Order: sequence, then C-alpha cells, then structure tokens
Amino acid sequence: MSDKKLIYMDSAATTNVAPEVFEAMTPYFKDRYGNASAIYDLAQESKTALENSRKIIADTIGANPSEIYFTSCGTESDNWALKSIAAAYKAKGNHIITSKIEHHAIHNTCMALEKEGYEVTYLDVDEYGTVKLEELKKAIKPTTILISIMYANNEIGTIQPISEIAKIAKEKKIFFHTDAVQAYAHIPISVEKDGFDMMSVSGHKFNAPKGVGFLYCRKGINLIPLLHGGAQESNRRAGTENIPYIVGMAKAAEIAHAKMEERAKSQKQVRDHLIERIINEIPYTRLNGHRENRLPNNVNISIRFIEGESLLLSLNDIGVCASTGSACASGSLDPSHVLLAIGLPHEIAHGSLRLSIDHKITMEDADYVVDHLKQIVENLRSMSPLYEDFKKQNP
Amino acid sequence: MSDKKLIYMDSAATTNVAPEVFEAMTPYFKDRYGNASAIYDLAQESKTALENSRKIIADTIGANPSEIYFTSCGTESDNWALKSIAAAYKAKGNHIITSKIEHHAIHNTCMALEKEGYEVTYLDVDEYGTVKLEELKKAIKPTTILISIMYANNEIGTIQPISEIAKIAKEKKIFFHTDAVQAYAHIPISVEKDGFDMMSVSGHKFNAPKGVGFLYCRKGINLIPLLHGGAQESNRRAGTENIPYIVGMAKAAEIAHAKMEERAKSQKQVRDHLIERIINEIPYTRLNGHRENRLPNNVNISIRFIEGESLLLSLNDIGVCASTGSACASGSLDPSHVLLAIGLPHEIAHGSLRLSIDHKITMEDADYVVDHLKQIVENLRSMSPLYEDFKKQNP
Repeated sequence: MSDKKLIYMDSAATTNVAPEVFEAMTPYFKDRYGNASAIYDLAQESKTALENSRKIIADTIGANPSEIYFTSCGTESDNWALKSIAAAYKAKGNHIITSKIEHHAIHNTCMALEKEGYEVTYLDVDEYGTVKLEELKKAIKPTTILISIMYANNEIGTIQPISEIAKIAKEKKIFFHTDAVQAYAHIPISVEKDGFDMMSVSGHKFNAPKGVGFLYCRKGINLIPLLHGGAQESNRRAGTENIPYIVGMAKAAEIAHAKMEERAKSQKQVRDHLIERIINEIPYTRLNGHRENRLPNNVNISIRFIEGESLLLSLNDIGVCASTGSACASGSLDPSHVLLAIGLPHEIAHGSLRLSIDHKITMEDADYVVDHLKQIVENLRSMSPLYEDFKKQNP
Repeated sequence: MSDKKLIYMDSAATTNVAPEVFEAMTPYFKDRYGNASAIYDLAQESKTALENSRKIIADTIGANPSEIYFTSCGTESDNWALKSIAAAYKAKGNHIITSKIEHHAIHNTCMALEKEGYEVTYLDVDEYGTVKLEELKKAIKPTTILISIMYANNEIGTIQPISEIAKIAKEKKIFFHTDAVQAYAHIPISVEKDGFDMMSVSGHKFNAPKGVGFLYCRKGINLIPLLHGGAQESNRRAGTENIPYIVGMAKAAEIAHAKMEERAKSQKQVRDHLIERIINEIPYTRLNGHRENRLPNNVNISIRFIEGESLLLSLNDIGVCASTGSACASGSLDPSHVLLAIGLPHEIAHGSLRLSIDHKITMEDADYVVDHLKQIVENLRSMSPLYEDFKKQNP
C-alpha cells in the first residue's frame, strides 16, 4: 500500500485506528488479558480499565458513567435502544416516530418492529434533509412511546434541529433516542442540554476500531437486555467485555474531543473548498444536504449523467477512496433512500458522490481530487447516451 | 506484571491473545482499514480477508463458508440461535429443550423466551453432569422446535454424548443447537458427523481476542437477524465487520487446530496430575464432572469447609489466577447452578475451585499450585467453625 498514492475520503464509512489508540489497546491484548468479571489482580486491572473508560466516555457527553453501556457497534446500540423501548413500554403504546432518512440500523429495525405489531411513522424531510418540526408534532399520538431521529445524516451530512426535536418529545413525555454515529466526536454533544434519553455511538467513525460502540441510556429508563447471559454491564449486556476496544474507544474519544475545534475548522475549509470547486467547475452538479447545518467532514454532490459506481472505480484508479452514499447499503442496486427522500429523481440519485474527509486531508489533496474528478466526469459523460441526448436537446 | 509470578489457571474464563494472532490483526488496525462493504481496493483487501477467514473457520468444522456468521461473542451467537429458531418456527411449535447446566447465555435466553410465551424444559443431569438420553427422549413433544445442549460444560468440563443427542433431535425433525464455546478449538468437531444444525463459538477461549465469535448455521435454516441494519453477513448480521478480530480468530483457530492433539496431550497430563495430587493429598475433596468425558483443560474440585472466594484471594496472593466457576456469574452470591444440578449440597457447592489450564502450563506450575493449595486449605480450615464442628463430631 505504501508506494501507491492513497487519498482516503470515506471516513464516514470507517476510519483507521489512530496510533495512540493502537498503543493504548496493545497491553490489553498481551499482558492485561484478565476477564473483568474475575477477582484476581489480573482481572481487576481489566475492571479498572473498563470503568476508567466508561468515565472518560461519560464525561465527553456530560453523562453519568452508569448511563454508558458498551456494545459491539452502532448498529447494536440502535437495535437495542429501539427494541428495548418497544418491549418495555408496550403497555403505554405501540407507536414509534422516526424519519425517512435514518441509517438502515434504525430503518430496518423499525421495519422489523412493524412486523411485530408496532406502528411506525416515517417522517418526510425537506429538500435539505431536515425534519419538519410541525410534521413531527402532528405525527404524535397518545400511543407514541418513542421518537428516534438521527443527529446528523451519514450520506448528506445534514444536522437536525436535534434539541428542538428532543424538546417536543419531552413536552409530550415521549422517549427520545438519537443515532449519533456520525455526529459524536465530530460536533459537541451534551445529553443534558440536548435533552436526549438515549443515544447510539460507534467507535470506528472516530479512529477507534470497528466492533465497539456504546449506548447512552438515561437513568430511570427501563433498559431490557438485547443479549441475555452473564451479569456484565450492570446485568444489561451479557458477553465478556472487549477491554482492548473499550480502552481504545475511550482514548479515541478523548483525542477527538480535545482536538474537535481545531479539526472541525480545518475540515470545514477543505469541505467548503471541495464543494465550491466541484459546483463551480463541473457543470450539472448540485450539493446535497444543508449548506450550513452540515457535518464538518461531509461533501455530497450529485453529478448528472454519471453512474456512481463507474465514478468510484475511476477515482479508485487514481488512489482516491470515496463512496456514493452509505457503505452499509452498497451492493444494493436501489438508489439511496436519503437522496430520494430529499426529492432527487432516481436518475440523479444514482450519480451521487460522497467525499467524507478526516483531519489529515489537506487542501492539496482536495485539489488533486477535483482536478482529476473534472477529467473523469468528462470522460464518463462522453460515453453517456443520456448526456448525448441532453446535449442535443439543450445545444 | 512481569516481575511478579503469574500462573494463569483460568483459561476457561478467557485467554490472552497469541503473538501470531496479534501480528495477524495488526495490519488491519493500521493500513488495511477499509470498510469491507465499499468498492475501492482498500476495501477489497478487507473483503478478501473477511472471506479468507470465513473459509479457514468453516474448514475447521467441515462446514461451508456460507454457513459461518461472524458475531461479537459467544453470548451473541447463543442469543441469536435460540431467538431466531423461536421466532422463525413459532408456527410449528413453542417448546424448547435445554439442560440445567447450560451457560447463562443459554439459560437466561431461555428464561427470556419463557416470558414471551415459549415453553422450556430444563433437563436434569446425572452426578457427572451428563444429560440423560432417556429423559431427553421423554421430554420431546409434538411442539418441540429446538434442542440446545452445550458441547462441554464451562464449570465442570463434562463432555456430553453430543452426537447421540443430535441424532435424537434429527430423528424427531427438531433443530439441534450446541453451545460449543468451551469445546471448539480444544476437541475435534465436525458439524456433519456430529449432526449439528447450529453451533455457537467464542474467540477468546482459544487465544483470539474478546469481542468476536461465530455462529454456524446449516444451510436451509431460516436465520432471522438479531441485529437489523446493513447488508453485512448475507443480510443476516448488520454492523461493519470487525476485520482485525475476525482475521485474528481465524489465525487462532488455525493454530489451535494444527496443535490440538499435542496440546490436549500435555494438558491432560497436567490436568490429571492436578486432580490426583489434590484429591490424594488434601482431605475432604472431590472431583466434579466426569473423570474421562472431560475437557483436557478442566479441573473442578470441591474442597469442603472452605469458602470459595477466600480460597481465590489466597491463591491470588501467590500469583495464581483461578475461579470458583463461571466468571460470567461472579459477583453473584448464589452457588453455581451447575454444581447444584449435579447434586452437591449448597455448602459444598460454595467451596469449589476451577483450575482451567492452557498448553503453556507445566507440571512444575501444577506442583507449585498444589503445594501452596495444601497450605492455604489448612490455614482456611483452621479458621473455619464448620470444620471445627466437623472434627469434633468425627474425631
């Protein structure tokens, strides 16, 4: 890999493990391998590392350590939050409100709950991917037990008016969960100020490894286990604790929060540079998502008359890693449900490009990508019958 | 840690990560971090590593790679197997048969299913912890959809007549699942010959890290996701794949299977030496579990007039890591459900010691432990009013 040029612009899909994170994890693979549930000194080291990590994570969002439950990924956190509220508060009602642009971990869990007899409202969003607060209010019923809206969208980067949504839920005494997988460690979050009851996070979106996440669950909420078994995680999540990854996630969270402002500033510069150059220099392109209420690391642009996969393969040839949308949905031939929800027609939704950048991406990297992208788009369009037809009709 | 003596005899609770496993994982933390669902070269490396690992694991049990589903732990595999069969075959029946000595990941999942309206039979075992085949046959009803019996017990090491149990299930067209967390990579398993429909495995019991496992599920069985979301694992288990751990588990499985015979031979020698010396040299002790049908790494001995936790703390003082039973149940004051199920009275069940040894434990280590154990037991008994009473009555 080292000899080949590599510009990684898919950090919304996953990130590498930061060197400091790797270093923090290593002893727990090697010498500090005790099972945190045992009672000898070797195990107590693991237990201490576990509780220190829980404290570090809790501090990043203003939570109590006892409100943090470690999981195997953001998907597990999402599934757990929704299924637990559904099961625990069934007597109160069977209605759940979510949006049309949620990650599949929320969307498909809602679909599964519908099969079990729950009623789910999937809220429309506006052209920028923002949930409409009036529609949310209208959707609330006496049977509504949960509202789950993502903090920021994984494809188009739009940040929701999340504390206003949480406030509406609170006023109606409805639990509020947010999938903060793309937001956490990238923008500041306070569960108290933002008014969250539950929040899902995944480690590998901020330089912790893939295979670890956490669920924040406010004290007092009846949290029913998704995984039954041993007494780990206060009897709520069975399974021997993955100490190396938990320690690694805490270290990654610590670094990301210490450097958040500085990183966001440089990411926004690169992001805005990418957006402006592409929109200005490549015809028939449009920005997807909100221009301002947007994750610092997200660029999502529709490029007309282009098939997304061909674009990605051409970018791969010049050492650029990018995606059309969610990696979790790749392999599917359907256009992005997010792009359809913001009103893009099928043929335009198919030709979208997501560039998600981390703090290491430079302005030079951005220029390299745009310079090549112009040429790639021109080449692909020159082979496109759709583009040919369009040019004939719009000479 | 390095200066202090450490004899780790709790490998049934967890193991350290083997150096070769750590080495195999490392590149996937650092340079090979691509999300396996993306389409660029960096991601394809991950995808290739994922599928190679699946093939290696499948080969160890004579399965097809498409029958291996990676999970976050043995507990997840157990939960998934039971809940999936329960949900998918509800129309056929609601009765599940298991045993009284299962791991909590099975036991507590069955209890949760009972709350949802399923009927569960918990079979008695004999004094060695062996399931009685005649009782199993008698327990089968027209509504029985699943039999789940562990391959080998985590506390007392007893190996079940597992292929005979599987045969009974097959004859009655009932699905058979086994929790093979303690058996896999320690004794040879063939899903075909043994006749398993589903099997749960955990990586950290054989020198892979904590936080990874797999579920074997025979082709043709309707496997319903436990975690809904992305399209990973053939649409059955959502969540970005934990490539480093999956690669690590495959490497650990490869090593364990290549060295299985040699390791088992040396472990059995140490095991038998421990058992004989303790039983012969410490009065009022008894071996728990079957003398022959026993895991190569398991010693479980009841030591009368002793409180288990005091014993463990004394062993810890001399650098020996051991347990009274399952680490997953520690923190609980109840005596082991396994020891009660084989007929031990409460007061004896409380004073049990599990020594689980890996291939690195030597005869000298074993002698060190027994020599000190004799002294520790003598000291603890000298402070025990129970022992005093007993001596008065049996002078």
